[in-house]
Amino acid sequence: MDRPFPPLYYSDYLQLDRLLGSQHRKSEEYGSPAHDEMLFIIVHQAYELWFKQILHEMDSVIGMLSAEPVDEAHIGVCVSRLQRVTEIQKVLIDQLRILETMTPLDFLDFRDFLFPASGFQSIQFRMLEIRLGLQSDSRLRYNQAAYHSRVSAEHREQLMGAERQPTMFDALQGWLERTPFLETESYRFWETYRGAVHAMLDGDRHVIERNPTLSDEEKTIQLRELDETTAHFDAVFDPARHESLRREGKWRLSHRATLAALFVSLYRDQPILAMPYRLIAALVDIDELMTTWRYRHALMVHRMIGTKIGTGGSSGYHYLKSTAESHRIFSDLTNLSTFLIPRTALPELPEPLLSRLGFVYNSGTR
Amino acid sequence: MDRPFPPLYYSDYLQLDRLLGSQHRKSEEYGSPAHDEMLFIIVHQAYELWFKQILHEMDSVIGMLSAEPVDEAHIGVCVSRLQRVTEIQKVLIDQLRILETMTPLDFLDFRDFLFPASGFQSIQFRMLEIRLGLQSDSRLRYNQAAYHSRVSAEHREQLMGAERQPTMFDALQGWLERTPFLETESYRFWETYRGAVHAMLDGDRHVIERNPTLSDEEKTIQLRELDETTAHFDAVFDPARHESLRREGKWRLSHRATLAALFVSLYRDQPILAMPYRLIAALVDIDELMTTWRYRHALMVHRMIGTKIGTGGSSGYHYLKSTAESHRIFSDLTNLSTFLIPRTALPELPEPLLSRLGFVYNSGTR
Amino acid sequence: MDRPFPPLYYSDYLQLDRLLGSQHRKSEEYGSPAHDEMLFIIVHQAYELWFKQILHEMDSVIGMLSAEPVDEAHIGVCVSRLQRVTEIQKVLIDQLRILETMTPLDFLDFRDFLFPASGFQSIQFRMLEIRLGLQSDSRLRYNQAAYHSRVSAEHREQLMGAERQPTMFDALQGWLERTPFLETESYRFWETYRGAVHAMLDGDRHVIERNPTLSDEEKTIQLRELDETTAHFDAVFDPARHESLRREGKWRLSHRATLAALFVSLYRDQPILAMPYRLIAALVDIDELMTTWRYRHALMVHRMIGTKIGTGGSSGYHYLKSTAESHRIFSDLTNLSTFLIPRTALPELPEPLLSRLGFVYNSGTR
Amino acid sequence: MDRPFPPLYYSDYLQLDRLLGSQHRKSEEYGSPAHDEMLFIIVHQAYELWFKQILHEMDSVIGMLSAEPVDEAHIGVCVSRLQRVTEIQKVLIDQLRILETMTPLDFLDFRDFLFPASGFQSIQFRMLEIRLGLQSDSRLRYNQAAYHSRVSAEHREQLMGAERQPTMFDALQGWLERTPFLETESYRFWETYRGAVHAMLDGDRHVIERNPTLSDEEKTIQLRELDETTAHFDAVFDPARHESLRREGKWRLSHRATLAALFVSLYRDQPILAMPYRLIAALVDIDELMTTWRYRHALMVHRMIGTKIGTGGSSGYHYLKSTAESHRIFSDLTNLSTFLIPRTALPELPEPLLSRLGFVYNSGTR
Repeated sequence: MDRPFPPLYYSDYLQLDRLLGSQHRKSEEYGSPAHDEMLFIIVHQAYELWFKQILHEMDSVIGMLSAEPVDEAHIGVCVSRLQRVTEIQKVLIDQLRILETMTPLDFLDFRDFLFPASGFQSIQFRMLEIRLGLQSDSRLRYNQAAYHSRVSAEHREQLMGAERQPTMFDALQGWLERTPFLETESYRFWETYRGAVHAMLDGDRHVIERNPTLSDEEKTIQLRELDETTAHFDAVFDPARHESLRREGKWRLSHRATLAALFVSLYRDQPILAMPYRLIAALVDIDELMTTWRYRHALMVHRMIGTKIGTGGSSGYHYLKSTAESHRIFSDLTNLSTFLIPRTALPELPEPLLSRLGFVYNSGTR
Repeated sequence: MDRPFPPLYYSDYLQLDRLLGSQHRKSEEYGSPAHDEMLFIIVHQAYELWFKQILHEMDSVIGMLSAEPVDEAHIGVCVSRLQRVTEIQKVLIDQLRILETMTPLDFLDFRDFLFPASGFQSIQFRMLEIRLGLQSDSRLRYNQAAYHSRVSAEHREQLMGAERQPTMFDALQGWLERTPFLETESYRFWETYRGAVHAMLDGDRHVIERNPTLSDEEKTIQLRELDETTAHFDAVFDPARHESLRREGKWRLSHRATLAALFVSLYRDQPILAMPYRLIAALVDIDELMTTWRYRHALMVHRMIGTKIGTGGSSGYHYLKSTAESHRIFSDLTNLSTFLIPRTALPELPEPLLSRLGFVYNSGTR
Repeated sequence: MDRPFPPLYYSDYLQLDRLLGSQHRKSEEYGSPAHDEMLFIIVHQAYELWFKQILHEMDSVIGMLSAEPVDEAHIGVCVSRLQRVTEIQKVLIDQLRILETMTPLDFLDFRDFLFPASGFQSIQFRMLEIRLGLQSDSRLRYNQAAYHSRVSAEHREQLMGAERQPTMFDALQGWLERTPFLETESYRFWETYRGAVHAMLDGDRHVIERNPTLSDEEKTIQLRELDETTAHFDAVFDPARHESLRREGKWRLSHRATLAALFVSLYRDQPILAMPYRLIAALVDIDELMTTWRYRHALMVHRMIGTKIGTGGSSGYHYLKSTAESHRIFSDLTNLSTFLIPRTALPELPEPLLSRLGFVYNSGTR
Repeated sequence: MDRPFPPLYYSDYLQLDRLLGSQHRKSEEYGSPAHDEMLFIIVHQAYELWFKQILHEMDSVIGMLSAEPVDEAHIGVCVSRLQRVTEIQKVLIDQLRILETMTPLDFLDFRDFLFPASGFQSIQFRMLEIRLGLQSDSRLRYNQAAYHSRVSAEHREQLMGAERQPTMFDALQGWLERTPFLETESYRFWETYRGAVHAMLDGDRHVIERNPTLSDEEKTIQLRELDETTAHFDAVFDPARHESLRREGKWRLSHRATLAALFVSLYRDQPILAMPYRLIAALVDIDELMTTWRYRHALMVHRMIGTKIGTGGSSGYHYLKSTAESHRIFSDLTNLSTFLIPRTALPELPEPLLSRLGFVYNSGTR
């Protein structure tokens, strides 16, 4: 075998001249070099490199999941790539520890030179949020303003273009909505399931009411939460009520997609559902890690600048902490746990469906 | 040299018969063994082991820091032990990933058997909070009730006893208040410092006002935050105002301790302050890791049970998330960053003080 | 729904009285309490708890994989449990950092009291090695002696019993040997594959020979390695040669199992092979993490006691380092990478096989 | 305060156009884009960014430690920067997990395009080794050849220039040699210490001889190791013997530096030695993490290409594994543990020295 490719040199391949020539300390430029500004630059550049990689993975997964029909061989690939994203996210979180070796006093050595640059202007991070499915009107209001005003016109254009593209949320929803099995299966199955969940929720109500360690006030709070859970659950089988929950912003995933995700979660031990279940679990992981990153990042900012405003004039850590919770994309998937019932109470699947969930070679002669 | 100790056997030393004989699955006892209940037990036991170790370290550090005077040789030991605590905390956070390999559906296989046991009843975790300095009346109200009602009488007694003991917060405060250097040093130094900070805050005000990317509303919010910062800062030099901030619950550390912590942070490069600075930094680390743990733990609970009530009837993840922020102990130390000024603007220390911050052998002949 | 189970209390459930009452410092017993002995005890106890959990997972996976036929729904469960083991292993490795906060000097405060107890006497660790598939006669000789002589008669009995049980290696091998697809498929497929690999290896030879940066000596070494690779590869298709490699101890997995593992690795994108591939990958992960743990553990011992003998009189870190490499179980799986060829060169699967590797519902009407 | 600096934009500051425009997949250039080549590029670029940061820290520490006399205020700074290096190293190790999400088969999709580029050609990694103190003639022979032949002439020049600069090892040695305290203090102190160590080693000998669980062969091995330890120890006090150990390559640190490092380790609780001790400990950490990285990297390579030759024609993982042990720089510091004796047996320091190891303010009136 001949290899007709010209010989490659490590530093040319990785374009190290450019890469390692892209750290220019403002403090040096302005005549008072601050040792730690190098760290500040490099840690942000490392983040941006990883953001590029995450976007590369997301784009490919969104593409594969948006196909109709999805090539079944691609589900495993999607899972692997999403799990790769989670491995990257773990490193993103751990990298904060490196940045925290820079003390607040060290930061002050060059902070003034950077005004008004800010992490809020990271286009790739915004792209990442958008590609995951964060909607412009779900963004915390304060930031939404900033989001429109602090980046260059060119970048603004780029972001608005991205907002018009299909997102991971869309791709997931579409793929779930196209799940087979659900349609032809009998009304009876979901009927039975609904009964099983109601029994479980009634049990929970009983538990709260007879719990001797709860004060009356506590009981009231918990029963109110239970009522809300019950309302959500009822909506699982009632498209109209589901729709109204969505309008209120309490749920985002379509009725059909919700049902499919629940089905996959419940019967994930069926061989054919093993990979789809892992795909859902990987998105829950990504959401959790993103949330953890946001929170940890907010703590780091708090530590670095206290209650001062950030380099970009942003209101800082209070805002960042709020986004941890409010900018979640896949909390519907996490909330599915509310509607699971124990395997022992799980209705058995009807036989024709069951055999369709196995593999061919099991039924064939070998 | 003779070693007069009887020979020791590994499993006797570690009491492995007891340790490894303490995992009894309720699901097995009730006839439907759930594989994952073993994980649930062991992960909680691993947490409890580490809590014991953390308490062991905390007790020793509180003891050393509470001595009057503190043996200077002990500061290094305190720092090492607090840093050990942070290493343990990192593992506590990472262990959550292990627990999350148990899926919500797997948990349901044995969840009902555990009622109403709950992590809320971990006495060691409560002890840990108390020993750090969490005050009974700072606890989120909901939990405060639980705190009194859900544990056994014996355990309640134990917790209330612990509340009467000196805490890490007390020990730190006392030690800081006894910091030398501050008293005899001239009024002038702090005067100068106050001027430098005011200049910095005025600069920040200027930045906000002239920032073209901010809306009027944003400016209003940021200027209000800046006013609050300025008020906090003025209190640094005015014992009366500081006291009133404390009464309002906006600050906890005493005036003198705050001043000392600020001094140590500003002049940490002086050899004699190197270790005290690291001690403060270690407590900030512990606080941050504790907060991170609380938040991650809340996410895990959300994932495991959705919006259902916990095994102990607790309202679950919403409550847990709130404690992440509200149960912080050393946020005053984190907030000190607000009052730091760049080294270039830092007033030089008066000569007599400076020489006292060096080491003896520097002034001796060698 | 009624819950007929008596109410459970957290500390009773976890048997915390026993668990937290099992730390007795010898240094305290002998009148010179060493603060850090507590850490030494607790870190070892934490290891033993996790070893118990790993053994719990291993036993269940060995059981499921040893069934004939394996319930296809169990493959996903096996993968999840093995991946859980890897999450535990990561924590085991990270825990070493906690132990390393104890300095060598601190260890000396109580080291003499522990003689001759030693981690070499951890029965669960030995069980873990045995359950994975470490064979008595593959153990490094030095240790083998210790292995027989340093533990109690009762424990020796227990270990020897375990050696007679089926191991993870056995279970994997058996399961791989029972893989369908391989048998009926045409001689031609493997023939083509053999050709493709030979082309690749010839290419590698060409690369070495024409590489201008290699000295003659280097070329000789690399060509010798390539010859060995070629010999291994040829054995993949020649049962007799494969058998002789096994006799020489250069390969352990049976011919048929090797072929199956290679097939799964090459065609893992086929939906039906997605989970089997992940099972193999999880075992490679476990092997790698075990090896990493052994190496890191050896470094820790080196740091703690230098070149001194260990508490149990063991020869210490040199020995431990050697086991990292020599006690690997699944290196055959890792070595499969040697025989992979690029997807572009991969022979297409014959049509009848291909359709059998898809899912039923793809061929059905939906 | 006015800020006269022109406004800065995030992506200009970080030169993101260059940074994020430096990923060109060869597979794309050659018409068969391989998805995972992006990961391969980015992970290597992330490594190179961090290498740059580590070199930045190393240079500054070497500079500060090489000053005569060292500014005492700089020791704390050195410790902080070295600890930062360890935080970076932890991320370098964890990043391997990201790369391992690329499977061997995925790598083959573009491996051929990269020939003969290789990580062996990373100039920054070589610089890092050199700056730490790896000597050209201590490099494993095989690599030494490669080291000279595989990089461009310009890079070779750069490396050879670096070899003529002072290294971390040199700086540490010089700084240790200049430690005060050792010289004027009485002959008697070290005399006593020598006696105490001999007693300890005699005890160890006794332990081995009477250990009933050891075979004769094991005893012989262990006694031989003990003899070697004793010989090393005797050399601690005998400059001539120490010198001969160095000539044999069994020790690298000068006699005086060794003595100083031992002194600091033994009396690190003295306030004045707290920071110097942490500096030594940080270098031991760096050495351990570097060794761990090398080993883990070797395992990753093994997994990725099996026993095949690397992209650069290097002999691969066997070589890489060997460097883990043989390329250590500070193993002398690790080996000091061998010569420590328990605090209870530690000779008390003479009074005049002791008072010089305290802080000024302890003896002053406050």
